[in-house]
Amino acid sequence: MNPDLDRQRELVPLKAKRLKLHTQREAIAIVNRNCTVARSEGLTERARVELRGRERQAIARLYQVENTVVAIDEIGLSETAWRMLGLSQGDSITLHHPRSVDSMAGVRSKVYGHRLSSSDATAIFRDIVEGRLSDVQISAFIASLASQPPDVSEIVALTRAMVAIGDRLVWPGDVIVDKHCVGGLPGNRTTPIVVAIVAAAGLTIPKTSSRAITSPAGTADTMATMTRVDLSGEEMRGVVEQEGGCMVWGGGVELSPADDLLIRIERELELDCTSQMVASVMSKKIAAGSTHILIDMPVGRTAKVRSRADAEELSAFMKGVGEAFGLSVETVVSDGSQPVGDGIGPALEARDVLAVLECDRSAPRELRQRAIVLAAIILEMGSACPPGSGKTTATALIDNGGAFKKFVAICEAQGDFRRPVLAAYQHVIEVMRSGRIASVDNRRLARLAKLVGAPRSPSAGLQLHVNIGDPIEIGQPLITLHSESIGELQYALDYYRANTDLIEERAR
Amino acid sequence: MNPDLDRQRELVPLKAKRLKLHTQREAIAIVNRNCTVARSEGLTERARVELRGRERQAIARLYQVENTVVAIDEIGLSETAWRMLGLSQGDSITLHHPRSVDSMAGVRSKVYGHRLSSSDATAIFRDIVEGRLSDVQISAFIASLASQPPDVSEIVALTRAMVAIGDRLVWPGDVIVDKHCVGGLPGNRTTPIVVAIVAAAGLTIPKTSSRAITSPAGTADTMATMTRVDLSGEEMRGVVEQEGGCMVWGGGVELSPADDLLIRIERELELDCTSQMVASVMSKKIAAGSTHILIDMPVGRTAKVRSRADAEELSAFMKGVGEAFGLSVETVVSDGSQPVGDGIGPALEARDVLAVLECDRSAPRELRQRAIVLAAIILEMGSACPPGSGKTTATALIDNGGAFKKFVAICEAQGDFRRPVLAAYQHVIEVMRSGRIASVDNRRLARLAKLVGAPRSPSAGLQLHVNIGDPIEIGQPLITLHSESIGELQYALDYYRANTDLIEERAR
Repeated sequence: MNPDLDRQRELVPLKAKRLKLHTQREAIAIVNRNCTVARSEGLTERARVELRGRERQAIARLYQVENTVVAIDEIGLSETAWRMLGLSQGDSITLHHPRSVDSMAGVRSKVYGHRLSSSDATAIFRDIVEGRLSDVQISAFIASLASQPPDVSEIVALTRAMVAIGDRLVWPGDVIVDKHCVGGLPGNRTTPIVVAIVAAAGLTIPKTSSRAITSPAGTADTMATMTRVDLSGEEMRGVVEQEGGCMVWGGGVELSPADDLLIRIERELELDCTSQMVASVMSKKIAAGSTHILIDMPVGRTAKVRSRADAEELSAFMKGVGEAFGLSVETVVSDGSQPVGDGIGPALEARDVLAVLECDRSAPRELRQRAIVLAAIILEMGSACPPGSGKTTATALIDNGGAFKKFVAICEAQGDFRRPVLAAYQHVIEVMRSGRIASVDNRRLARLAKLVGAPRSPSAGLQLHVNIGDPIEIGQPLITLHSESIGELQYALDYYRANTDLIEERAR
Repeated sequence: MNPDLDRQRELVPLKAKRLKLHTQREAIAIVNRNCTVARSEGLTERARVELRGRERQAIARLYQVENTVVAIDEIGLSETAWRMLGLSQGDSITLHHPRSVDSMAGVRSKVYGHRLSSSDATAIFRDIVEGRLSDVQISAFIASLASQPPDVSEIVALTRAMVAIGDRLVWPGDVIVDKHCVGGLPGNRTTPIVVAIVAAAGLTIPKTSSRAITSPAGTADTMATMTRVDLSGEEMRGVVEQEGGCMVWGGGVELSPADDLLIRIERELELDCTSQMVASVMSKKIAAGSTHILIDMPVGRTAKVRSRADAEELSAFMKGVGEAFGLSVETVVSDGSQPVGDGIGPALEARDVLAVLECDRSAPRELRQRAIVLAAIILEMGSACPPGSGKTTATALIDNGGAFKKFVAICEAQGDFRRPVLAAYQHVIEVMRSGRIASVDNRRLARLAKLVGAPRSPSAGLQLHVNIGDPIEIGQPLITLHSESIGELQYALDYYRANTDLIEERAR
């Protein structure tokens, strides 16, 4: 259909009907099977269609219904489509063949193996965010990106494009520090501790974090059990100006709006795309205004990065992008063979964080050590202490209560400081056989924590009472499950019984 | 979610509600936003879910609705989902996390640049046909297939897989002939004439054809204006056994069930995937039981194949696949610079076909010539006449009425023989300037035919009264538009006025 011609036509408008249909970010339109407009336009079921309201347009997927939920002169819309068109009750819209989406030329060029320019990439990401590309089209983009070996200049182009389409924060001062962990390691909740130490030392660290995507807790989930995390960009600025740091949810600040959409497709494809991952991490740091960035990469058989070689490749890409943007990037390869803290799940991890900050005797030593190592590097990168003295400074800030005081101050600036609550039900799984702990499967442990309800129920999760190499005696507590419902506890126990080898023991 | 564990659980069933929602082949499930089952399973909007009925399972896309169209204890289903589960009114189903689809390993391996084995490809196509792969997943498959240069052994693997998942016809006799045209040329309706000649000469030609996908008419649309085309496999067999040939719609005989689904995704990506196209054509011929196949490839700036080099590459792939399956494959590169017959649209093309078969003086000469050339090659391939005498034999069979008699006999065996009817409205577009015809844009001419209503209205379409090189005088008829509605005629005229250069004239 020629769009110019199409525009001249007197098209019969359809009454927009809000279906209250939640589809995540997919725009869906449903017409009656006998709708004359759709029939005369030859718009069949599953066609892509363009909807035009008074001021705004949207591309949607068209379905047909054979009953009265949508009348012949109506068009039913999903929430996303309704919002994109900015409609009010009673509005009418017209239905058209969609114009070809220009950025698809870039997607096809990628499919045919060409490297993306940053203007191609910007056009693609903008169309993704504004809903002009369908999931089917985004999938072809991701697949073709994953099908070529990653290349630094292409990753730089992708990063630049992601930065271009989002908001960008600007801070006073030349040194803005940040950290990121290439996830996959349960309980590795160093961020709140590192931010507290670094801000206490006088550096600026405007930290945004994500909620869990596939894991039992994200840093934002953990922080949400102790304070408010859904701050706007303006509120975040206030907190950072007052306290030098923050720990907020990144979704409230639109730093990388294409991210969620890309990740959703990658999950459906069960595909990790290195280029996309590096660009996504680095673009968020750049958009957050960071100048000095530390990347923590836990390596282990059941962590996200599985070998030292993979970590080194990833590290080279991160540093390459940093160089292109004039940023200082350091990477740390850490042990990813087992969980770091004792708790897995939002509130249980928060308790570990507080235990470290309050120098509690029960605090997980590994979590404290890792937080100190990471904070030390950042302190030295940001020149907050003389070279070589990072560890001493960081340790002192925990031990003298300075970090805890800063943590509470940040939480209060964000809204309030609360102590995480315990779940209603606990169940202790005991060691069945004396011996020694041989290995821990991070992935299945994470699944166990999700089965008891994490992160949906913030207090749900598990505590792991052993580490690799520990000698164990029969009857000693191995794992404590925490849950808000007996049912979920039961599911998790069933799963554990079918997977007792998720923690492998070696007989003595 | 561990499937074994999941199976043990006592899951609360939901009442299945048939939404009468038409989605082409997408399985969609809609639950109420407050549905406790979905909430306790952590199944968010747009999740992939597994639905289990009493006997059958299906994977579907889950949406949520916030009103009473679907109650809290119900689950609404699209027609596809309803059919896949084999449900009856009042049935209940349970909702689960989907198991990982095994064939996705093959898709990922393709993304990472490995060539597909035929067992990988079979698993992928089977899951596509049975609805286990989502459109997002199919898209990644197509994109990764298109991202590598085509390779004969991979195309053979794809072809073998497509054959494996569909039905396969077996015929008595060693020689079963067939033809295919790599489309894109309006009015190139040689098939009915070729089938009539070849069957009249005593060869077996069980021809299946498609309906239009993006064009104004497919061979099946044209034949449907003269006879019944939606025959079952059994009915088709009867016709071929009686008459030696048939001209039926391929959709009634499931020879390549993955085809439509793949083509739908390719259209959304605006992507031509050579491997998929060759495998799709060849698999249908193999499944139809053909042993000798002729492929017609019109080459032209606005045809599907744009250069002789492309045609030669395509020809090599077709012949390579033929060799792997022990088939005799010939290809003909023909002129694709302008339409072949005068008519474009189902009934108008049918009239051209009949005019050729009945030796009418008005019959388009080019259509007659092409049909004779193609039939001649097939006659010689199938040893129905001595080498070198194909053209004479084919010409004689048209001129002595043998082909027309066979055509009518085949139509009657398929159900009936009807003459195509003319549309209610005609409008003649006249030549505006004397001179000579310089070029014809096949694509825009096809669009014009679609705007007047083809193929939806079988009698709609256009007649082109000139050919490239013809001298023309002002006022002489250029195009006659045929339509079932004044409105469509008006749309088409508006389009033509904005695109008068779709037929280029050179002034004398």
